[in-house]
Amino acid sequence: MPITILRLGHRHYRDQRLTTHVCLTARVLGAKKVILSGEKDEKIINSVKDIKERWGGDFEIEYQKNFRKVIKDFKGKKLHLTMYGLPIQDKIKDIKTQKDLLIILGSEKVPPDIYHMVDYNISVGSQPHSEVAALAILMHEYFEGKELNKDFKNPKIKLKPCKAGKDIIET
Amino acid sequence: MPITILRLGHRHYRDQRLTTHVCLTARVLGAKKVILSGEKDEKIINSVKDIKERWGGDFEIEYQKNFRKVIKDFKGKKLHLTMYGLPIQDKIKDIKTQKDLLIILGSEKVPPDIYHMVDYNISVGSQPHSEVAALAILMHEYFEGKELNKDFKNPKIKLKPCKAGKDIIET
Repeated sequence: MPITILRLGHRHYRDQRLTTHVCLTARVLGAKKVILSGEKDEKIINSVKDIKERWGGDFEIEYQKNFRKVIKDFKGKKLHLTMYGLPIQDKIKDIKTQKDLLIILGSEKVPPDIYHMVDYNISVGSQPHSEVAALAILMHEYFEGKELNKDFKNPKIKLKPCKAGKDIIET
Repeated sequence: MPITILRLGHRHYRDQRLTTHVCLTARVLGAKKVILSGEKDEKIINSVKDIKERWGGDFEIEYQKNFRKVIKDFKGKKLHLTMYGLPIQDKIKDIKTQKDLLIILGSEKVPPDIYHMVDYNISVGSQPHSEVAALAILMHEYFEGKELNKDFKNPKIKLKPCKAGKDIIET
């Protein structure tokens, strides 16, 4: 069940840490790929590739300027996460039947036509929200919590869970 | 079941948007209060109060310089979210029996003694992560999804969920 995340309208500096958190969330919760749009930001792309290199898994990241083309060309269903959308709890059953999903996350203003280019506009809470938190809940619901047991292949380092303190293992 | 969030080590500028996302996530998913520590940042406090004023609910936000005193004085159980901790899926059943919970979120480096001042060190995925996403999944698990139907009292504006587009209602 591949999930691809499309991050719209990234702005250098202002969005750097939030977009990085979008990528980390997507990776840890089992997305296949993040596509960044907006201003090109090699720093984020390199830091995410570095995490993959050290921590394993097959997560991909790429930049695409033409986000409308990404949406149009995507073969599966397209889901835009927005506080204005329909409640996730009413639609998740249907969403879970989709095997190939593009999840679209805005930064500041999302162009109005995007709402009409997608199969679902979905809200997590119908209130001002964090797109990182909304993405986490959507993915957690979609994968039914099984994503937390995901195995990241070929890591150089991994963690041994600790009651207190830190335990990092070199593999 | 009151949840309080303690955000450690906030840094002006660098953490401003992420700490705001922590606050938005805490509010929308039903926390009672966020306590900010680190550098004092009136801009975040005012913007969160402004959201409460317009969107309703009884969410509180305050600043406390002495975060160790906040942890020591807290009457309920204390949970530190950290990638190094025990897997949430192994501990959530026990955590859900706790009626009064302090959730501690770090920014950059968390002082080592914090790991030993808490009842739980909990990880969401045992990988590099976003603390915003980890908080969202923890709260979503704790409240069993019921938090998504939360009613925010006395709003000035609210949203009517939309299949496409935006519908804001003045109340």
